[in-house]
Amino acid sequence: MKFAKNLIERRISTEQVFSGKLLDVRRDLALLPDESKSTREWIKHPGATAIIPVFENGDILLLHQFRYPLSQIFIEVPAGKLDPGETPDQTGIRELAEEAGLQCTQFDYVGHFYPGIGYSDEIIHIYLAQGLSEVPEKTDDDEFVEPFRVPFSQAVEWALNGTISDGKTIISLLKAWDWWQKNTIR
Amino acid sequence: MKFAKNLIERRISTEQVFSGKLLDVRRDLALLPDESKSTREWIKHPGATAIIPVFENGDILLLHQFRYPLSQIFIEVPAGKLDPGETPDQTGIRELAEEAGLQCTQFDYVGHFYPGIGYSDEIIHIYLAQGLSEVPEKTDDDEFVEPFRVPFSQAVEWALNGTISDGKTIISLLKAWDWWQKNTIR
Repeated sequence: MKFAKNLIERRISTEQVFSGKLLDVRRDLALLPDESKSTREWIKHPGATAIIPVFENGDILLLHQFRYPLSQIFIEVPAGKLDPGETPDQTGIRELAEEAGLQCTQFDYVGHFYPGIGYSDEIIHIYLAQGLSEVPEKTDDDEFVEPFRVPFSQAVEWALNGTISDGKTIISLLKAWDWWQKNTIR
Repeated sequence: MKFAKNLIERRISTEQVFSGKLLDVRRDLALLPDESKSTREWIKHPGATAIIPVFENGDILLLHQFRYPLSQIFIEVPAGKLDPGETPDQTGIRELAEEAGLQCTQFDYVGHFYPGIGYSDEIIHIYLAQGLSEVPEKTDDDEFVEPFRVPFSQAVEWALNGTISDGKTIISLLKAWDWWQKNTIR
């Protein structure tokens, strides 16, 4: 344990050690606060957007989705990675249509967070979508997901009691619930 | 968008495509629900434990830590990866001493979550530590961290208002706060 006043590490060099369909893995040489050198391995990520679609009656839409790394079906909020050139809100509108089959008249920014600061530069932007209706023509993005509706308050309970265990979904629900309580007149 | 009743993907083969000091990257061939085949890239992770140390007066201990992938200093809960053979609670007790210089008389399991289900099998276990005292002999684990104390309720506000943006810290604080409110007589 070193309580250094200067915590900053500086990049000396960088190298791409794996480039796949999904993952871009880097290995850098870094200068540490005590002037020693060390390697830093990390994932370069384009960022992502998560959306909480809230219906008029207070239900929200969630998804069942199988996740290969854990070989489990998770309860998730609709979400997806930014395509090249996309802004976070554009990604949100696109994913809302692709994963939930929905469009909206109100789309509010709730906040952002970093899911894996130890080994990834990923940022996740959170939006709340209201004024929902079904999209006229459904797009097919080859994702296997099963949407379902649940009261917002029930989903928040699931985020706290362990029923929901996906990190981005827990944070999106708890931050969006806090935002919604403060910003919605019902 | 495909609403398939069967969401399960099955592993056909697996290959380690990068093995570094920190990261173990795999590329698998998977059989999808519609019988097509696709590659799945993911990080194999040993799991981690996060700890909320709560003092008698209601303060908790947090850390300032620089994170290389984002080149930023974050506010974090003490946390660390499981060493080989360690159980999650053993990791928690070790990290509490190493990162915070503390030992405890009460160590309660709060829950767990998965921070990056899209490309990592990482699980993070959350514990709440009470009955805190300084460890007699401080260990040195070569980590540059700066601990500080803050009221638990203030940290929860930071987790919701964006002051804290590290995913594991947001979830650990909000789940531990909920647990603490329900399980502590004050």
